[in-house]
Amino acid sequence: MRALASDNYAGAHPAVLEAMSQANTEHMPAYGADALTARAQELFRRHLGERAETYLVFNGTGANVIGLQSLLRSWQAVICASTAHINVDEGGAPEKLLGSKLLDLPTSDGKLTAEMIDQVQWRVGDVHQSQPAVVLITQSTEYGTVYSPDEIRAIADAAHRRGLYLYMDGARIANAAASLGLPLRAITTDAGVDALSFGGTKNGAIAAEAIVILNPDLLARGVGEQLGYLRKQYMQLASKMRFAAAQFIALLDGDLWLSNAQHANAMAAKLAQATADIPGIRITQPVQANAVFATLPRSAIARAQEHTPFYVWDDAACEVRWVCSWDTQAADIDSFAAALRVTVAQ
Amino acid sequence: MRALASDNYAGAHPAVLEAMSQANTEHMPAYGADALTARAQELFRRHLGERAETYLVFNGTGANVIGLQSLLRSWQAVICASTAHINVDEGGAPEKLLGSKLLDLPTSDGKLTAEMIDQVQWRVGDVHQSQPAVVLITQSTEYGTVYSPDEIRAIADAAHRRGLYLYMDGARIANAAASLGLPLRAITTDAGVDALSFGGTKNGAIAAEAIVILNPDLLARGVGEQLGYLRKQYMQLASKMRFAAAQFIALLDGDLWLSNAQHANAMAAKLAQATADIPGIRITQPVQANAVFATLPRSAIARAQEHTPFYVWDDAACEVRWVCSWDTQAADIDSFAAALRVTVAQ
Amino acid sequence: MRALASDNYAGAHPAVLEAMSQANTEHMPAYGADALTARAQELFRRHLGERAETYLVFNGTGANVIGLQSLLRSWQAVICASTAHINVDEGGAPEKLLGSKLLDLPTSDGKLTAEMIDQVQWRVGDVHQSQPAVVLITQSTEYGTVYSPDEIRAIADAAHRRGLYLYMDGARIANAAASLGLPLRAITTDAGVDALSFGGTKNGAIAAEAIVILNPDLLARGVGEQLGYLRKQYMQLASKMRFAAAQFIALLDGDLWLSNAQHANAMAAKLAQATADIPGIRITQPVQANAVFATLPRSAIARAQEHTPFYVWDDAACEVRWVCSWDTQAADIDSFAAALRVTVAQ
Amino acid sequence: MRALASDNYAGAHPAVLEAMSQANTEHMPAYGADALTARAQELFRRHLGERAETYLVFNGTGANVIGLQSLLRSWQAVICASTAHINVDEGGAPEKLLGSKLLDLPTSDGKLTAEMIDQVQWRVGDVHQSQPAVVLITQSTEYGTVYSPDEIRAIADAAHRRGLYLYMDGARIANAAASLGLPLRAITTDAGVDALSFGGTKNGAIAAEAIVILNPDLLARGVGEQLGYLRKQYMQLASKMRFAAAQFIALLDGDLWLSNAQHANAMAAKLAQATADIPGIRITQPVQANAVFATLPRSAIARAQEHTPFYVWDDAACEVRWVCSWDTQAADIDSFAAALRVTVAQ
Repeated sequence: MRALASDNYAGAHPAVLEAMSQANTEHMPAYGADALTARAQELFRRHLGERAETYLVFNGTGANVIGLQSLLRSWQAVICASTAHINVDEGGAPEKLLGSKLLDLPTSDGKLTAEMIDQVQWRVGDVHQSQPAVVLITQSTEYGTVYSPDEIRAIADAAHRRGLYLYMDGARIANAAASLGLPLRAITTDAGVDALSFGGTKNGAIAAEAIVILNPDLLARGVGEQLGYLRKQYMQLASKMRFAAAQFIALLDGDLWLSNAQHANAMAAKLAQATADIPGIRITQPVQANAVFATLPRSAIARAQEHTPFYVWDDAACEVRWVCSWDTQAADIDSFAAALRVTVAQ
Repeated sequence: MRALASDNYAGAHPAVLEAMSQANTEHMPAYGADALTARAQELFRRHLGERAETYLVFNGTGANVIGLQSLLRSWQAVICASTAHINVDEGGAPEKLLGSKLLDLPTSDGKLTAEMIDQVQWRVGDVHQSQPAVVLITQSTEYGTVYSPDEIRAIADAAHRRGLYLYMDGARIANAAASLGLPLRAITTDAGVDALSFGGTKNGAIAAEAIVILNPDLLARGVGEQLGYLRKQYMQLASKMRFAAAQFIALLDGDLWLSNAQHANAMAAKLAQATADIPGIRITQPVQANAVFATLPRSAIARAQEHTPFYVWDDAACEVRWVCSWDTQAADIDSFAAALRVTVAQ
Repeated sequence: MRALASDNYAGAHPAVLEAMSQANTEHMPAYGADALTARAQELFRRHLGERAETYLVFNGTGANVIGLQSLLRSWQAVICASTAHINVDEGGAPEKLLGSKLLDLPTSDGKLTAEMIDQVQWRVGDVHQSQPAVVLITQSTEYGTVYSPDEIRAIADAAHRRGLYLYMDGARIANAAASLGLPLRAITTDAGVDALSFGGTKNGAIAAEAIVILNPDLLARGVGEQLGYLRKQYMQLASKMRFAAAQFIALLDGDLWLSNAQHANAMAAKLAQATADIPGIRITQPVQANAVFATLPRSAIARAQEHTPFYVWDDAACEVRWVCSWDTQAADIDSFAAALRVTVAQ
Repeated sequence: MRALASDNYAGAHPAVLEAMSQANTEHMPAYGADALTARAQELFRRHLGERAETYLVFNGTGANVIGLQSLLRSWQAVICASTAHINVDEGGAPEKLLGSKLLDLPTSDGKLTAEMIDQVQWRVGDVHQSQPAVVLITQSTEYGTVYSPDEIRAIADAAHRRGLYLYMDGARIANAAASLGLPLRAITTDAGVDALSFGGTKNGAIAAEAIVILNPDLLARGVGEQLGYLRKQYMQLASKMRFAAAQFIALLDGDLWLSNAQHANAMAAKLAQATADIPGIRITQPVQANAVFATLPRSAIARAQEHTPFYVWDDAACEVRWVCSWDTQAADIDSFAAALRVTVAQ
């Protein structure tokens, strides 16, 4: 049974494993000095702009922490939504490994706005207070919502006006681009994002994430070289990097990244449609990517979880999260929705 | 052409990729709560003792740093050989992420001895000085040498007498066991090792390493629970952990770990034999695992590297390192040795 | 002119300097192994209970960070008020040096409550989320308010029920005790506080703060020994510690700590009384210790600061902070209040 | 009885306490924005050059760690002598708080040389290895020896040729200048030192140290601003900084710094002279500052310590350290030497 617990409950798309097998031919230089890693970097440039510089890492927490660290000193802070993955789901890695404060802002839908950035108050230049240096947004958000290019541009402008960089946690960036029907570049480089974590794992890979620096001023200031050292020191430099590269090649060379994301999004839309009219159920967030958030009667939650595993998001509110994956089947949705309808009615 | 640069220039053994494909069947709980991870943990218990507790991670630096961190507070120090991987090849990760001092001791062959541990002087209880808490040995060592069980036991006893734990960096532990013709348990649990990093990557995997706690007193004191938090916070918790587990299952369920290591060791022995009598070449270390260290005439190094890539280990001494892998072929050795003979004679 | 900017704009009470001169007699062992430090530790036991163990440090940030570190591992979090000094005024030292997350709760008056502690939600045992381990309260608070012993006891009980320690930031603990008319022990040891930062600097010293462990279970578990190492490693171990000890002896041997605090509190009460009826001024917090918070017409702030320096606390709200010191004079208050009355009327 | 254990067993020179009393007049801005701190900074410029920028801190470990941190990123390393205070006497603070590796070199007399710097080998640009960025020398050294200006210049040139900064741990810089009969500037700014820790405590202060940036290029690159944040975050920013400033004013405005150091040095010279001919005693280091190192018969050590406290430096070698202070008296030396002669003869 396919779960609705998380898109990391899914396995890998067969094409990803096939690409890894094809990569398994002969000796290659370790630590990324191989032709496949160069090929993956080229694909990132194709999707994100010719000046994008890419560093492959193992997982999303690694990408976020090391990517942010390349933009921050320890006395500087990151502005993010309270629901941001870095704030609530990375085991305190940002505080421990960046040494920086996260300034988390409440939101209703997981999305920061330009107005919020404008309104953040701090004592500029006061050594007693962590000084904001980066704004982080998640695309698509932890609530399954999606920033439009205009919203991102407005945030980027607000950030840049105050001397802050804009960093994107793109663990599910493919779902966002698919939702918007836009190329990846439109919601990153062209919208003013300075650097991002690009997620492959939830998009059908095994373990493949990337830090991508988009702003060429950062590279001119040595951030690329620093990332090389940081990635090693922070324990995210793979020796047999070709296999991570192969995963990204499988996703990015054709449109597998897109079809996987479109499919997962479509399944979430189908799930929302199939459950929205069940009495006692309320969809709490716009369903724009591959997740559905809903409130259920408390008594129905555990029984529904027996049918298909999923997580409670907010216990006090009886809010649950259902996440669809690249491999979720229409029959899974139909079966779960039917079971839910019965369960809630009991 | 297969290189002699490092055993991480090799790809994965086909059985490893096959196991990953077999693992790619359906949804499984993320972050290690899956049946394959449980199976891998069971295999570690089979090889290392029924009380061994295993935590899978991405890479060797991650295993060493997090494993050590579970035994250390920041004011405590690690005694290791000067040539230890943690001291010279992990990008300063131990200092940055443990916050602990490494007390490195010179050795002729990469091996600490019980006598060295006995002789380390420190001001016990003096807050001005980092207090040793762990001895780390590498098996097989960075010089391709191997500790006998008696040597390990003597070091363990010396460490324990002074209140220190014994940690083993087992990035190439399979090569050591193969060299000695002993089960893994004989050079770890049964020899007094308290915890270790167990390497899969250099043994034919893609990216699979493990931290294993052997000393049950550590587990009774909560070290296992702490490792869970540390692994996440230090960014080494894989979401789709089943695929790391599958790699270890491929290696450890049968004797693939052993045959891979035996083969690499045999190739190194063959290489040493084929080159030892070349005039101008001197084998500098006992060839006990899968590496050969030798001095060459300076003028021959670059030309030999053109034939087959390898690293200079000590530039001043014209000492080079040749590492054999699970996939090194006898013909590779013959070809390289022949070329070297010609090159050195020029 | 004496300012209302902060109680650290004041100098030292003459008795403090006199005690330092008396301490300047002959050679004494360094780093706290001297008779004066022992005497200061004895005085802390007199005030806080015979099992209190005291570690002198240089400043309040040092006391808070090192005191908290002795109770925390990096994956654990501290619950505090959003206005807590550790959250907004220590330059990010807690995140950098503890590596721990601060979970800050909004309050109206700077005070946490037992109910707030009861209501904090976290996923217990989930490695993805920082796990609360300590509740920190500030006494008197950053808003000049004071916790009653019953309020502290209720918070301590709530914390202990959930397995958390209660830490007190007592940078102005003397002001709180003076306000309540209670011995120091009544609001610390006897109210369930496990450990605290005890402030001397704002109470008339030059630079003298202390970490005091009150809960004997902590000492039994080695926290005292760990604090010795942490204080040195975190750079807060004074070589000529006798001079810090002398400052505490001056304050704590008689009732100088109390009279200094009573005086500062009385001046704040006088200031509140003298300004509360000025049209356009609103006292925003209960005046229970040595600080007064008030909103002013925006146009009056700068002109009033020209008469006497003070800080704007909340620029958007036109809220300012006036802090009285051990040396604030009644004439200072009268003069400032009169000037303010004129200024606001303009 | 005045000890020979350490120059921090001594109290403060009366003029230092007098200056603190004079500073205790009225309210002053906190955290260094006061006239006395400005005055101290001016005095540092007088002694070290008009472009020197000074940051006062609490203690020597704080000065060293924060000063180094302003020049380093975590993947960079510090080259120092094995005997350096940062390497053996700061409780692991450099590793914990810099996160950087110390590359310690053996020396016979505590002094690095330009040749040693020339010969340090590292893999430039290799992310697997901490990259040296700073050379640290101690003046006068932990062995009581003194670098000449030419020696410092040669080290500075060697460091700069390799892209490294030269940092001086000047905990006893006054003793070095007094020994050489040179102005402070001659062994710092004019000799190519980029930044230093300037010690007041061992020179007759209570607790006063400074970080001084000498290289104007560093300031142009923002190191000064960064130091402001680092000093606060690393918990070394004094609120009532005027009192630290007053201590430096007492030392540096006239020649108290020099006369204190000259006296301590003279007492060490006298001690060496008075003991060198005692049978069984060997002076092991040149006596150039205020310390004497000697080997004694093992049986004599404890008895001599009963007469006057001092530390054993190298237990295996029966080497002890005697340190003279600004307040050591000739009679102390005579008495100790006489007692020692008797003791050793027994």
